[in-house]
Amino acid sequence: MEMNRLMSKTQRELPADADTVSQQLLHRAGYLRQLGAGMFSLLPLGLKTLKGLERIIRNEMEALGAQEISMPIVHPAELWQLSGRWESVDQELLRFKDRLGRYYCLAMTHEEVVTQLAAQFVSSYKQLPFAVYQFQTKFRDEPRPRGGLIRAREFLMKDAYSFHETATDFAEFYSQMLKAYERIFEHAGLEIMTVASDTGLMGGAGAHEFMYLNPRGEDTLILCNSCGYKANRQVAQFKKVFENTEPLPLEEVATPEVATIEALAEYLNISEAKTAKAVFLVDEGGVEERLIFAVIRGDLEVNETKLATVVGAKRFRQARVDEIIAIGAEPGYASPMGIKRKNVLVVCDDTVAQSTNLVAGANKVGFHLLNTNYGRDYSADRVADIAAAKSGDTCNVCDARLSEERGIEVGNIFDLGTTYSEVFDASFLSKDGYKQTLHMGCYGIGVGRLLACIVEAHHDEEGIAWPKSVAPFDLSLIVLKDKQSNEPFEVATKLYQTLKQKGIEVLFDNRDENPGVKFKDADLIGLPLHLTVGKRGLERGMVEFKNRQTGQKWECTLENALESVLAWEPG
Amino acid sequence: MEMNRLMSKTQRELPADADTVSQQLLHRAGYLRQLGAGMFSLLPLGLKTLKGLERIIRNEMEALGAQEISMPIVHPAELWQLSGRWESVDQELLRFKDRLGRYYCLAMTHEEVVTQLAAQFVSSYKQLPFAVYQFQTKFRDEPRPRGGLIRAREFLMKDAYSFHETATDFAEFYSQMLKAYERIFEHAGLEIMTVASDTGLMGGAGAHEFMYLNPRGEDTLILCNSCGYKANRQVAQFKKVFENTEPLPLEEVATPEVATIEALAEYLNISEAKTAKAVFLVDEGGVEERLIFAVIRGDLEVNETKLATVVGAKRFRQARVDEIIAIGAEPGYASPMGIKRKNVLVVCDDTVAQSTNLVAGANKVGFHLLNTNYGRDYSADRVADIAAAKSGDTCNVCDARLSEERGIEVGNIFDLGTTYSEVFDASFLSKDGYKQTLHMGCYGIGVGRLLACIVEAHHDEEGIAWPKSVAPFDLSLIVLKDKQSNEPFEVATKLYQTLKQKGIEVLFDNRDENPGVKFKDADLIGLPLHLTVGKRGLERGMVEFKNRQTGQKWECTLENALESVLAWEPG
Repeated sequence: MEMNRLMSKTQRELPADADTVSQQLLHRAGYLRQLGAGMFSLLPLGLKTLKGLERIIRNEMEALGAQEISMPIVHPAELWQLSGRWESVDQELLRFKDRLGRYYCLAMTHEEVVTQLAAQFVSSYKQLPFAVYQFQTKFRDEPRPRGGLIRAREFLMKDAYSFHETATDFAEFYSQMLKAYERIFEHAGLEIMTVASDTGLMGGAGAHEFMYLNPRGEDTLILCNSCGYKANRQVAQFKKVFENTEPLPLEEVATPEVATIEALAEYLNISEAKTAKAVFLVDEGGVEERLIFAVIRGDLEVNETKLATVVGAKRFRQARVDEIIAIGAEPGYASPMGIKRKNVLVVCDDTVAQSTNLVAGANKVGFHLLNTNYGRDYSADRVADIAAAKSGDTCNVCDARLSEERGIEVGNIFDLGTTYSEVFDASFLSKDGYKQTLHMGCYGIGVGRLLACIVEAHHDEEGIAWPKSVAPFDLSLIVLKDKQSNEPFEVATKLYQTLKQKGIEVLFDNRDENPGVKFKDADLIGLPLHLTVGKRGLERGMVEFKNRQTGQKWECTLENALESVLAWEPG
Repeated sequence: MEMNRLMSKTQRELPADADTVSQQLLHRAGYLRQLGAGMFSLLPLGLKTLKGLERIIRNEMEALGAQEISMPIVHPAELWQLSGRWESVDQELLRFKDRLGRYYCLAMTHEEVVTQLAAQFVSSYKQLPFAVYQFQTKFRDEPRPRGGLIRAREFLMKDAYSFHETATDFAEFYSQMLKAYERIFEHAGLEIMTVASDTGLMGGAGAHEFMYLNPRGEDTLILCNSCGYKANRQVAQFKKVFENTEPLPLEEVATPEVATIEALAEYLNISEAKTAKAVFLVDEGGVEERLIFAVIRGDLEVNETKLATVVGAKRFRQARVDEIIAIGAEPGYASPMGIKRKNVLVVCDDTVAQSTNLVAGANKVGFHLLNTNYGRDYSADRVADIAAAKSGDTCNVCDARLSEERGIEVGNIFDLGTTYSEVFDASFLSKDGYKQTLHMGCYGIGVGRLLACIVEAHHDEEGIAWPKSVAPFDLSLIVLKDKQSNEPFEVATKLYQTLKQKGIEVLFDNRDENPGVKFKDADLIGLPLHLTVGKRGLERGMVEFKNRQTGQKWECTLENALESVLAWEPG
């Protein structure tokens, strides 16, 4: 591609609201332009890079025997009503009416459509397993699109779906897919961490996420550097230590103006681990709202994802004061003791249920109770692990200290079990002649987000420095203009033709610009290898190479330039 | 691809509402499945065929120097408000609100976005001409989606846009694009007719459509078999013959219960060409509605597209009786004589303005006027050609008789002039240093519709019969199962591997089905060449070929099978 024709434009200035390095560089280097909040046009450089990533992903999908299909972006509401997600998914699902008043949504995922297709297609165990995938535009009405392609509203996604006879067959395929994902990211030059994760709006039995570690990531990962345990904080576990002493008698104590755990511990001169904390949330995702009263030891925090899984909630909001008072609890001094249990679900973390003699609220302004004991003094509707792991907690596997990292999720895989197959009656006749429900998995990669993360991982002060495997072109060929002689231009043009014929993808900077501009633009655009043809070098029969990632430069004779390009590998 | 794994399923039954051959066959042969009205999932066979068409189109676009980009599907309302199309385009443009209440639309075309990009990118004449294209999903909220992929609501479109210094430069590129389009359709095996057409919602100065002739087409073409003149009826011209005699005095005549042109001509025993007909339409596309009073000779019909162009209307509806009466005209007996001219735009076809002594309405129930003469008795706000050409009319070019055909539009190209460039300030500095506005063109192909039209053109009773250039696979390899021997299967499997290694795309029917089913399915799916391996043939060392399009069969030795496939060309 000749640069004087390329629809692109490098810029020194930053776009106004570009809040990540990748967004800044992809804009400045002319890979994309923003159309609106979370919506981007991909210019030729951007689209070419994206298509390279598609190829890497497609190869791995095909190797697994998955078949490429294409499902619509616009889905009738009825399908999503069948799965229940029309109601359960938040405003991220963009819903609208057509001219006849029928409801539709812009798909952010395709479980409904693909399961319906599978139900039409599969009839016998002989057809299993089978897997399909697509590259499709998705739309997610993000409340806060940011970071350019990292959190866009309209974005390209590879989504794959697999169907199996049994959970065992599925597990085998799932682990193959997990390895294929790890190969994809490795091939794309992105170091990722595979972590256990929550199933979120997908439902189903289990999931993994592929995380690019980055301080600006929106996810928190809990890691054990000793045994290698790693999980999204949403599901991360840790070892809880309980103090278990002889129960003492309940005793009311005045605690004037002590309405937080911190103040309470200080006032009574005890550790926060000797207290019980009350957290009130409302599950607003169901047909009717439900008040959830979570109780956890004072030194811990409630993990809302774990709590949601325990109570089967779709979406929480903070409870209002009047909702707390309505059940007879006193904000700031609340505990499950003496409340009306009719319109509330009480969930105790196991730390609370297994500790003795905790200080808890007396449901009376200015008073707490000493020596409360679960079982003797109060009970719960559920006892479960609803505590959030954090840096410094003890690893559940090896007793070492856990640490935290931030990450950006570039892919995820889910065990969907029979959640969707049951709804859409996707079944098959087993070898024994019984009707059975398909076991299903789904597998996503945000292709645009992956592209942005590669830039986050591979750049320097001067610009992008693509790994060879994903660069939109192999080579920047730069000719230095010369007022006296046309020779450099002629030599470079000939070299450009020769390289192209050999299948090298060349970005030929044939523009009428100064050397400084050309070098700066080549660094910004970030192709792995740069080759400069100038008058001074040619006088000695030489051309100059540069390795963009290392900055290393070397000369080579013009005659050997082609061979050098063909043989070159980044150090 | 092994058929026992292919996500597809041939069916004998027709889908309930499939109203075209292509929709029936593409469904029955397992290329696609309908998700909702005008929305389709492409199964592996369908997507592979579509991608083949993409390749054919992409090659021609690249040969013209056009660069591939990708613009969003969801557009902010502001852009379309700037161009005026937010208001002027009908309900086909699907509009909706996001969670913050901001308005967006699902793009059916991308002039606004691409012109804004061009404005950012182009600054100098040195960058011109340049052209970009994309393959992008479009959504058009069709009132009556029908014919499967022929008139879908969600569909894949190739849209290209070009930008030029001058109208002359543009014209040169436009004619190259026109030829490229003709090559694309030829390569895809679809015979098309290139016709002049209306600019419709694109605006601009001129346009061509690429029509596949088909009795079920929604467009009517006017053709001259003598000189080759051809145009969409919307813009087609024809030679009008006027009778011009000495004007006679105006005379009122009683015409009781004669409220149609046909009845009037019969009652007065004159030809319809001696009458003037009144047609009342309301332009409802503007800020305020406007009544349009069109007058045309009684033997002709008003062409609403021509009329819309003359008066600059966006969209017409029939006028109501009360609207006609309000200007002092009498429905059934209306003419421009004596009406209130304030709230109506009168447009006369040139046949009316240039004929003499026509019979016209007296604006009084039961009465007409004899010998009305334009200029003497009444005037119009506009005189123009607003007449619809029809079969039997005289060719404007060569005086031969015109004929009509129905067609399906598979592509179109438009001269947009500076319509969008002016709105988005897409300009450049000319060689002389002046700021000039870009001259722009746009070029569309409905890729899914093209696919369906190829099926309409290439099928028989048994199924689809793809041209070699667009078939999803090169070859159907059919193995006939044999209870006694495993040899056919082993031979066929080996042949499958060999063919694949040579780059032949093979659909290998390795299913456990009877020969009859396999032959029927192969005919239905419609790959150009079929190769059958069976026990009887193998006993003589032979395999059997079949040309799907001609039905011709021939034998070949197993040893020569590969060579035969490589050398084969459809007759």
